[in-house]
Amino acid sequence: MSSRARPRRGPRQGGADTRRAVLDAARARFGRHGYDGTKLRDVAADAGVDVALVSYFFGSKDGLFTAAMAIPMNPAELVEELTRDGAEGLGERLVRRFLSLWDDDAANSPMIALVRSAATNEQAAALVRGFVERELLLRIAAAIDAPDPELRAALAGSQMVGIIMARYVVRVEPLASAAPEVLVAAIGPTLQRYLTGDVALDG
Amino acid sequence: MSSRARPRRGPRQGGADTRRAVLDAARARFGRHGYDGTKLRDVAADAGVDVALVSYFFGSKDGLFTAAMAIPMNPAELVEELTRDGAEGLGERLVRRFLSLWDDDAANSPMIALVRSAATNEQAAALVRGFVERELLLRIAAAIDAPDPELRAALAGSQMVGIIMARYVVRVEPLASAAPEVLVAAIGPTLQRYLTGDVALDG
Repeated sequence: MSSRARPRRGPRQGGADTRRAVLDAARARFGRHGYDGTKLRDVAADAGVDVALVSYFFGSKDGLFTAAMAIPMNPAELVEELTRDGAEGLGERLVRRFLSLWDDDAANSPMIALVRSAATNEQAAALVRGFVERELLLRIAAAIDAPDPELRAALAGSQMVGIIMARYVVRVEPLASAAPEVLVAAIGPTLQRYLTGDVALDG
Repeated sequence: MSSRARPRRGPRQGGADTRRAVLDAARARFGRHGYDGTKLRDVAADAGVDVALVSYFFGSKDGLFTAAMAIPMNPAELVEELTRDGAEGLGERLVRRFLSLWDDDAANSPMIALVRSAATNEQAAALVRGFVERELLLRIAAAIDAPDPELRAALAGSQMVGIIMARYVVRVEPLASAAPEVLVAAIGPTLQRYLTGDVALDG
């Protein structure tokens, strides 16, 4: 990409090199400006491509972020899949789906890298916070028919983050080697109560 | 400390300099050898003091570790205090006590530093894992009269780690600014169920 100011047009724009240039530009932008401060058109300008091409490749900002960070899920699709059948059993579906994502070694390492950097670097923490709040928690909250949906979703998120830290990052036993279905049975009801149950949130 | 091989004897051993030398030696040993691999007598030798003096200052290894890492609690005393009145209400007492520890800014920053380093560094993770498993989870497990006490304690630990990450490290809202009693009411029953309730742990 010798000329960044004037987007090139033509068939080569759709190639693997272009895709890679967009992802590089996205990682740099997200790293510098956080999730909320990053715009598709700025990423497109940095990569020297038309913004329509970025949309064509990655849909919207959450799609670009998950691709740039190698997160093996689209949050909108994930939440839609989990909430499609209503609130009943949502807690168990949520744990089962997350464990299947994180137990998959190939998917696991870039996500662990992201968690590690969020734990140590304020910029990375803001980035993860923006993504998790906006794309996961608010979507889950929107699907919950109960008071204080944001706090409920955040409580459920805290239990999932704790399992990620304990099982995959610090690897505390016997949690690290527990069978997934044991954890689904143990943690599913916790998430279900946080999301839809009686949690006395007005203290 | 010019001579490390032969411990000096005398009144100066009890002073602030000696205490500092022992803590420096402890941090270095824990960092290199992990929690399980560190012995009081080796720390004493590194600091050039008698092992009896280390015991006198810090009690046992958990006391030395919490002092070296500036953790504002002794785990044995903490667990004794929490379990003294039996299992009923243990979940709420646990959340309330942890939030009061972590909401205290002065105490909070060295503990956050430890969590950050455990998230990024394998040696630090092993150190925290050893301490948490041996000094917190096994003690709590010993106080629980229910099947699978270690897994129960680890599940409770995962929820606490998740709150620490979400509230203090990544600061996800509305969790970061929720009133402590809101969290006690929301999370206490989760811990209580993990520790003593029906969690179907044989999957």
